[in-house]
Amino acid sequence: MKISCLKSNLLSSIQTVYRAVSSKSTMSIIECILIDAREDMIKLTANNMELAIETILNGDIIEHGSVALDAKILQDIVRHLPDSDISISVEDNLLTVIKCEKSEFKIVGKRADEFPALPEVEKDDPLVISHLTLKDMVRQTIFSISENDNNKVMGGEFIEVKDNNLKIVSLDGHRISIRKIELKNEHEDIKAIVPGKTLNEVSKIISNDINKTINIYFTDKHVLFEFEDTIVVSRVIEGEYFNIDQMLSNDYETKFEIKKSELLNCIERSTLLVDETNKKPIIISITDDNMELKINSVIGSMNEEIDISKDGQDITIGFNPRFLIDALRVIDDETITVYMVNPKAPCIIKNDTETYTYLILPVNFNTVQ
Amino acid sequence: MKISCLKSNLLSSIQTVYRAVSSKSTMSIIECILIDAREDMIKLTANNMELAIETILNGDIIEHGSVALDAKILQDIVRHLPDSDISISVEDNLLTVIKCEKSEFKIVGKRADEFPALPEVEKDDPLVISHLTLKDMVRQTIFSISENDNNKVMGGEFIEVKDNNLKIVSLDGHRISIRKIELKNEHEDIKAIVPGKTLNEVSKIISNDINKTINIYFTDKHVLFEFEDTIVVSRVIEGEYFNIDQMLSNDYETKFEIKKSELLNCIERSTLLVDETNKKPIIISITDDNMELKINSVIGSMNEEIDISKDGQDITIGFNPRFLIDALRVIDDETITVYMVNPKAPCIIKNDTETYTYLILPVNFNTVQ
Repeated sequence: MKISCLKSNLLSSIQTVYRAVSSKSTMSIIECILIDAREDMIKLTANNMELAIETILNGDIIEHGSVALDAKILQDIVRHLPDSDISISVEDNLLTVIKCEKSEFKIVGKRADEFPALPEVEKDDPLVISHLTLKDMVRQTIFSISENDNNKVMGGEFIEVKDNNLKIVSLDGHRISIRKIELKNEHEDIKAIVPGKTLNEVSKIISNDINKTINIYFTDKHVLFEFEDTIVVSRVIEGEYFNIDQMLSNDYETKFEIKKSELLNCIERSTLLVDETNKKPIIISITDDNMELKINSVIGSMNEEIDISKDGQDITIGFNPRFLIDALRVIDDETITVYMVNPKAPCIIKNDTETYTYLILPVNFNTVQ
Repeated sequence: MKISCLKSNLLSSIQTVYRAVSSKSTMSIIECILIDAREDMIKLTANNMELAIETILNGDIIEHGSVALDAKILQDIVRHLPDSDISISVEDNLLTVIKCEKSEFKIVGKRADEFPALPEVEKDDPLVISHLTLKDMVRQTIFSISENDNNKVMGGEFIEVKDNNLKIVSLDGHRISIRKIELKNEHEDIKAIVPGKTLNEVSKIISNDINKTINIYFTDKHVLFEFEDTIVVSRVIEGEYFNIDQMLSNDYETKFEIKKSELLNCIERSTLLVDETNKKPIIISITDDNMELKINSVIGSMNEEIDISKDGQDITIGFNPRFLIDALRVIDDETITVYMVNPKAPCIIKNDTETYTYLILPVNFNTVQ
């Protein structure tokens, strides 16, 4: 094999597939990137057996062939070479020569046929959304997946298409995050649970462009994301997701509007007084036009007030401040609406069109603190 | 005590003294910042017993007094408060109330008289240099101090004033770094060894301003840096420093000029092939107008050439690439001059006026690699 390309193209392709390189494995082949120029284009592939990424490298094939190179060493070398043409050629015994201007590196590669093949995914009827929309929907829900291995479906996000609406849901034992959009094109119904790690990695590769689209294909076992010159293939999580609708309710006893940034800043301040070994709830008392927030720990105490606009009952309720912060940080609205029922029922933060819904369980607290 | 000040002033004063807060100590008082408003100004002090920093806080004293507050908690709280006026007042039992707009924190402080006093340093005949000059001189030498506890003087920088020249020197067993400037004002001779940590911290606090000056006072036991509203006091390292002059020589067999960035980039690339467990020298062969650099390790090999302009003998010599990189990174000149004697003698990188001199020992290598 002998190929030649611009350093900038090679580096960007390496960085794209790098997210699927296994970092610690007993199989050194999956710590490699496969460079495949056997046919009429150059493809770079990484595959850690959970997630695989393949991208097309813009360059010239001088001699067809292929080689798998240690991903970390390849990336380090390419990153440090001058901004110029790079040639990669494989000599006898897989000795691979990487040349750029007056610099020449030699490293030993592995055989391409040792490299695990990508799963076959039939590309039929794609779900089409923009890069930015997918990125936003993931960012605004991913924080409430659960790392808990006891329940595998909680480690993924539930992706549902129904009546031409796309819904992405995540939940752990304490909260539920939901984002919903209307699809531009008709699409048949979908239900799939996609690993959080896959969605995170895809989010990092795709652009912030609202005008570029990404095609997503689902099968029983796999999901494939296709955009520009890149495909990402991942296993889906098998199993039945939770019935979310029965956990949500439109009833409330207290409803108020509040400036998001004021609430967020205040709760962030309150966490200065708690840590892993010393967890305390933030206690929120809602009266007419006023929210009082209190936290009390061995480190000290905080007391703060925020103006609100309230309908319904007064209420005093406690929360894990972390859960409120996670939701508030990803909401883009400046003013938010919060719904509460009683100190033991979940509170819900949502907008009128329900493009976002965050449900958070309260925690018990002793009012006589 | 009751004081009031702008959040921005308080935060900046806390951040200045924070560098002298002890991070892990059995004495919780030295993890505190002392706020002292007993007299006519507000002083913040931190003192970890090696290094002490005191700064004046611009604010109003409403009631004289003092309190020591946990530095981390104080900094966290102040950083998260709104950009507004902050008041700090001490109530009964050292309960300290920090108020800002509608936010109120209460934490328990410690008594000021538990806080260790700053060492007394007589301020007589200061050494005066600009912020930027001190910062540069430290940055360009500090990397070659030794962390080795067996020889305490190697953990500091040697500061010498002689014949109106200021020289800063650091060395470990493998290299020597020297920066020299001519002083603007006459000053009597000084010899002192200042801990590397002290110089690092002072460098971080002072500005990049060439027009602002810093006064440095030396006594047998201490060094005091005075600038703007801040003083830094540190112990000096006791002992006799090495006789540097007898390690340097003006003789050479090979002298060449080279573009610094080309050499640095090449050596940085070569280190991709070495790591902690697999150290290898970079082998440099100098012939007329050409430098060849080679490195060989279990990971792979690198070979590169750079144009130079040479006087004297051809030479092949090996170096720890790290030591060359450290020196090259801090030299501001675009073209540098390197002097060599033989493969077992140190090489010297210096400019004509010797405002900087870097001596680096070579390492043995097997030419039949």
